[in-house]
Amino acid sequence: MNFSINSNVLLNNLMISQKALSTKTPAPYLQGIKLEVYDDEMIMLASNSDISIKISIKDESLNIEDEGEILIPGKIFVEFIRKLDKGIVEFSVVDNSVLKISSNHTNLSLNLLNVEDYPNISFKMVDGPIKLESKVMKSVIKQTTFATSTIENRPILTGVNVKVQDDELIAIATDSFRLSQKKINTTKNYDKMNVVIPGRSLDELHKILELDLEEILIHLDHKSIVFEYGNILFKSRLLDGSFPETSRLLPNEFPVVLKFKTSDLQVAIERASLLSVRDSISSIVKLNLKSNNDVEITSNSPEIGKVVEDVETIDCQTSTSLKIAFSSRYFLDALKTFDDDEVFVKFTGEIRPFIIESKKDEGLIQLILPVRTE
Amino acid sequence: MNFSINSNVLLNNLMISQKALSTKTPAPYLQGIKLEVYDDEMIMLASNSDISIKISIKDESLNIEDEGEILIPGKIFVEFIRKLDKGIVEFSVVDNSVLKISSNHTNLSLNLLNVEDYPNISFKMVDGPIKLESKVMKSVIKQTTFATSTIENRPILTGVNVKVQDDELIAIATDSFRLSQKKINTTKNYDKMNVVIPGRSLDELHKILELDLEEILIHLDHKSIVFEYGNILFKSRLLDGSFPETSRLLPNEFPVVLKFKTSDLQVAIERASLLSVRDSISSIVKLNLKSNNDVEITSNSPEIGKVVEDVETIDCQTSTSLKIAFSSRYFLDALKTFDDDEVFVKFTGEIRPFIIESKKDEGLIQLILPVRTE
Repeated sequence: MNFSINSNVLLNNLMISQKALSTKTPAPYLQGIKLEVYDDEMIMLASNSDISIKISIKDESLNIEDEGEILIPGKIFVEFIRKLDKGIVEFSVVDNSVLKISSNHTNLSLNLLNVEDYPNISFKMVDGPIKLESKVMKSVIKQTTFATSTIENRPILTGVNVKVQDDELIAIATDSFRLSQKKINTTKNYDKMNVVIPGRSLDELHKILELDLEEILIHLDHKSIVFEYGNILFKSRLLDGSFPETSRLLPNEFPVVLKFKTSDLQVAIERASLLSVRDSISSIVKLNLKSNNDVEITSNSPEIGKVVEDVETIDCQTSTSLKIAFSSRYFLDALKTFDDDEVFVKFTGEIRPFIIESKKDEGLIQLILPVRTE
Repeated sequence: MNFSINSNVLLNNLMISQKALSTKTPAPYLQGIKLEVYDDEMIMLASNSDISIKISIKDESLNIEDEGEILIPGKIFVEFIRKLDKGIVEFSVVDNSVLKISSNHTNLSLNLLNVEDYPNISFKMVDGPIKLESKVMKSVIKQTTFATSTIENRPILTGVNVKVQDDELIAIATDSFRLSQKKINTTKNYDKMNVVIPGRSLDELHKILELDLEEILIHLDHKSIVFEYGNILFKSRLLDGSFPETSRLLPNEFPVVLKFKTSDLQVAIERASLLSVRDSISSIVKLNLKSNNDVEITSNSPEIGKVVEDVETIDCQTSTSLKIAFSSRYFLDALKTFDDDEVFVKFTGEIRPFIIESKKDEGLIQLILPVRTE
């Protein structure tokens, strides 16, 4: 094998591929990046137990003298290419086992992994994939994955449940203390699907979506999912098992509906949470609806002190009093998913889940379970 | 006690003070920041076992209604003030034990520490302190502290030796594998001094010097050192014991003197060091002077592969051949202290220490011990 390519083109694609590199794995070949060069194209492939990434590179700087495929130790390869001077870099394979990389005054000989060991990874493409704006895909991910469980005792909750029916796509995540749901309309009708995608896979996908391409295609069937983003194919493992039915958890009557300036609510809860932050991850704050329809956010630590924050409501529809306590971190996490300057917080009762919504973020519901105090 | 002040003024000074806060200490009062308000001035004081910082704050926004002094739990105080809205914040002490902080819609009650517990910290000022440009002080710190030892078995080597005599100040650091020496001329003559300042104290001082003040005064006597930087006094503990005499370590005859473009040398060694980086902190590279007066930097790992870097010399004065091996990290650390585009690397022999110098960085010498291979 023998080819040359612009080092920057190579590096940009390696930066994407390396997201699928295993760092610790019993299978050394998964620490490798597979390169195939044929005709006028380079195929770059990396995979770990969760995700696989396949990139097709056709660049005018790519010059293939001799075709072939190799498996390169991934991490050191990326680091080396990152440190190369800009310009053309030449690759040639010697004795089927060593890759020679030359550029300017630099020569690296890198021992190759055995490409025969590399598993065959299929990227199943479907007819009529789901088409989304990539910025919509990004917001769906950002608005849901944070609410997945990080504890492995219910593995299914470490994933995001994605359901497609007709012209609607719903993404749901819950760690059983909070729930995020985002509903979007697709431009056309699709077959019914119901899968669970690991939250971490979606976080990696989110990073790749930083490239500024307009659309993403989702090749979804019941057993596999492949995202097609320009010349990149991104495949994620799916989680086995059935995701809990959450629709009945969402309350639909709200005796108390409060409207806030998002930033007012955020800084008040941030400050209130400072007092208890040392005690536990989920520092508890209390919200108390006052008779003047504003609210008081309080936090109390006998050892350290007490915070009282007054937050004005923009609007308040209520037929009852309200005192409720909740995790400040869950509330702040949820609040950050909204793009709107104003949010609604809707309460059913003092020990019932409450939800956050906004006008601008249509289809988005954040639900939080309160905690009982004293 | 009762006063008010602009929250930003308070925060900017707290950010400096907190560098002297203890995080883990058997003495809880060292986790506190002491505030004294008298007349038209606030004195802010923080201290740990290494450094003490005292700041005098006179600001037009400072309005003192009732004088006094208090000791505030430092970390939470800084975090809270950081999250406050901009504007005036009011402070009042209740029952000698609780500090009330009010601003806009926020009220914090913070349990105070007992100010009587706080030790008396003296900042000894001398007549005729040493006066330096603060940018010179910054470069002295940056060029030496990195070479101090991080291992505690010879505590004296964790410090920087500062010697003053007549119109010369010399700073020296060594971990016994490398040595940094910076010599500067002072504008006038000073008494003879010889002290050892903990490297970590100087690193903290370096951060404070980010403020853009022109000058720094050094109040140095044989037992204490206080840096005066605008309204800030920064005191460091000194290390006991005598610093090794290093002058005889510096070679003065150099059969091989090579001149390089600094960046050429840096990237070549960075790339060569990639191969061995997993094996140890001090990855070894070899430098080989070729017959054409350029050099070859090589690194070899039987498992991973081999790097060969050609680096052109700008100038080469040599009467002998040269093959030498050294820690790439030590070399890169040393190289980063130079501001010049070009550096000289001067060799005495293949198993003798070598030095790096540049024209622009007058008074700076970086010395590195080679390692023996095979």
